Amino acid sequence: MRVSDPSARSRAWACVAVLAAVLGFSAGAAADPLPSWNDGPAKRAIVEFVQKTTTPGTSKFVPQAERVATFDQDGTLWVEHPMYSFVVYALDRVPELAKAKPELAKVEPFKTVLSGDRAAIAKLTLPDLEKILAATFTGRSTDAFDAEASEWLTTAKDPRWKRPYTDLTYQPMQEVLRYLRANRYETYIVTGGGQDFVRLYSETTYGIPREQVVGTAGVTKYGYDDDGKPFLTKEPKLLLNDNDAGKPEGIHLMIGRRPVAAFGNSTGDRQMLEYTKAGEGVRLSMLILHDDATREYAYGPAENLPDTKVGTFTQALYDEAQKDGWIVVSMKRDWNRIFAFER
Amino acid sequence: MRVSDPSARSRAWACVAVLAAVLGFSAGAAADPLPSWNDGPAKRAIVEFVQKTTTPGTSKFVPQAERVATFDQDGTLWVEHPMYSFVVYALDRVPELAKAKPELAKVEPFKTVLSGDRAAIAKLTLPDLEKILAATFTGRSTDAFDAEASEWLTTAKDPRWKRPYTDLTYQPMQEVLRYLRANRYETYIVTGGGQDFVRLYSETTYGIPREQVVGTAGVTKYGYDDDGKPFLTKEPKLLLNDNDAGKPEGIHLMIGRRPVAAFGNSTGDRQMLEYTKAGEGVRLSMLILHDDATREYAYGPAENLPDTKVGTFTQALYDEAQKDGWIVVSMKRDWNRIFAFER
Repeated sequence: MRVSDPSARSRAWACVAVLAAVLGFSAGAAADPLPSWNDGPAKRAIVEFVQKTTTPGTSKFVPQAERVATFDQDGTLWVEHPMYSFVVYALDRVPELAKAKPELAKVEPFKTVLSGDRAAIAKLTLPDLEKILAATFTGRSTDAFDAEASEWLTTAKDPRWKRPYTDLTYQPMQEVLRYLRANRYETYIVTGGGQDFVRLYSETTYGIPREQVVGTAGVTKYGYDDDGKPFLTKEPKLLLNDNDAGKPEGIHLMIGRRPVAAFGNSTGDRQMLEYTKAGEGVRLSMLILHDDATREYAYGPAENLPDTKVGTFTQALYDEAQKDGWIVVSMKRDWNRIFAFER
Repeated sequence: MRVSDPSARSRAWACVAVLAAVLGFSAGAAADPLPSWNDGPAKRAIVEFVQKTTTPGTSKFVPQAERVATFDQDGTLWVEHPMYSFVVYALDRVPELAKAKPELAKVEPFKTVLSGDRAAIAKLTLPDLEKILAATFTGRSTDAFDAEASEWLTTAKDPRWKRPYTDLTYQPMQEVLRYLRANRYETYIVTGGGQDFVRLYSETTYGIPREQVVGTAGVTKYGYDDDGKPFLTKEPKLLLNDNDAGKPEGIHLMIGRRPVAAFGNSTGDRQMLEYTKAGEGVRLSMLILHDDATREYAYGPAENLPDTKVGTFTQALYDEAQKDGWIVVSMKRDWNRIFAFER
């Protein structure tokens, strides 16, 4: 290990902090760990939760091994409107697919996607989208998928902000991730999006390693190439639909511990938030409410918008949050900053 | 954090070591990290692998995030003869099951198990065992399963050594686990055994946390109890058969990285060892050969024994190991000690 190795250096500094804590030094009043959050019930709930669960000798103390926090991605950690980015990716891939298989251009829903007719594309049904997702996410080796999707991630841009999708993460949530990790929580993404897709950028975008991404996953199949070298093929068969009840089920499969804190923004996160809150001791379940049409988007009960394909936040969900003691975060009121690039 | 917290203390000491390394101190010649291994090609292969992959600035260096080592459990980390311990658990549970459901006592294979006829039980077929495993591992909540299996683990004893099964881990492999972790490898169990079962003791037995256990896993189903409290039920439906090709497939699903080192002992580990060895750079694939009938058991090509229900190590596997550059470990020749309790 050399001092010129940045990760060694950062470990060394982290170690200085640990030693200081063990030996009883104090750095004085700590800086605000959540500067993009306005003071209010949501911010206070997060800080109190962390203080209660990490102060040894109290009844609320959670041992380090049990400190698991789970985060939905789309609409919770980054923008999901007007379309999930993994769906945008799938649509963008269709012309390439049609080059390789020209017969696709003649069949729906691929024909509509290739027409470029935005209004028609916006009207595609869920079964249509599933066909497109299956065609773009499966039928290729894991290595080929990784290469294709990685290239898209570095080149594609969100049409409103004209930036890579990975820039569109919420700065307040990045602060929550870092704050929890600084307090020895393990932070997991638990997403309805494709697990293999999110793993490509989770480390660089969120500081979350591949193995801490739980997502919708398909069967893979082991085989050998012409040189006898083994590889895995992504099969068009669902293994884990990591939405709704699939979230706690996926958490049990992949983590094996009930989260102490969970963050979501839609009905697809309901069971994860319930499951988390139902654990013993202090638990934190949080729902992000998209109510800022100026700085981001407003949908769900905030604007009484019609149901959309993404991020359904119903009145029933809001009512359950109130009843069950989840914290609802208003983007408009609780966040003084949405994106890191804004200033 | 207080000095009286043992984990904080051990972290502090680990930090002292890291700081010393970064600042250029040296503790002089390091103690042998593998004292239960005799000097020989197997021990040298492990030490050289670790040195090559963790020395910065060389072409063989593996970044810390990529340092994944996977271990089969039965026959690789602990004794699997004459029967996998999770199968012993399932058989031991049958009387309890029959108490709750008396009709079971009249149907096979439960009738045979309840007869106590050891010869007849030993002749149960794989489909028979699968029925018994399904009946003991599913149809109950994850919490109920955990409680039942945990109790068994603290009370059941291996008939030969008269000790809890968790004492029957191989001391040389415990040293490999610790040596790899000291060099910032993440050590995963990748087992054909039940994931939920192994997770109950992986931390205390191997220092491997629950989330680093990949095993055969069934579907769970989210639901609510009479008080509206959510829980998960273990369903009799297989999600991941973590044997053979299921091992690299499970590794992709749960870890998302190709291992740099893998350890196994049977044909069920073949694909994991191939997949590992086929990665770029330096890779270590190791096979444990059970050839010590005195101190443990001898089976597979070592004694030309007939095929058994467990740990099949065929001549074809041995030949592939030779051809593909895997290291075969002879328990008799390479290990000077088998169990921690022996001295």
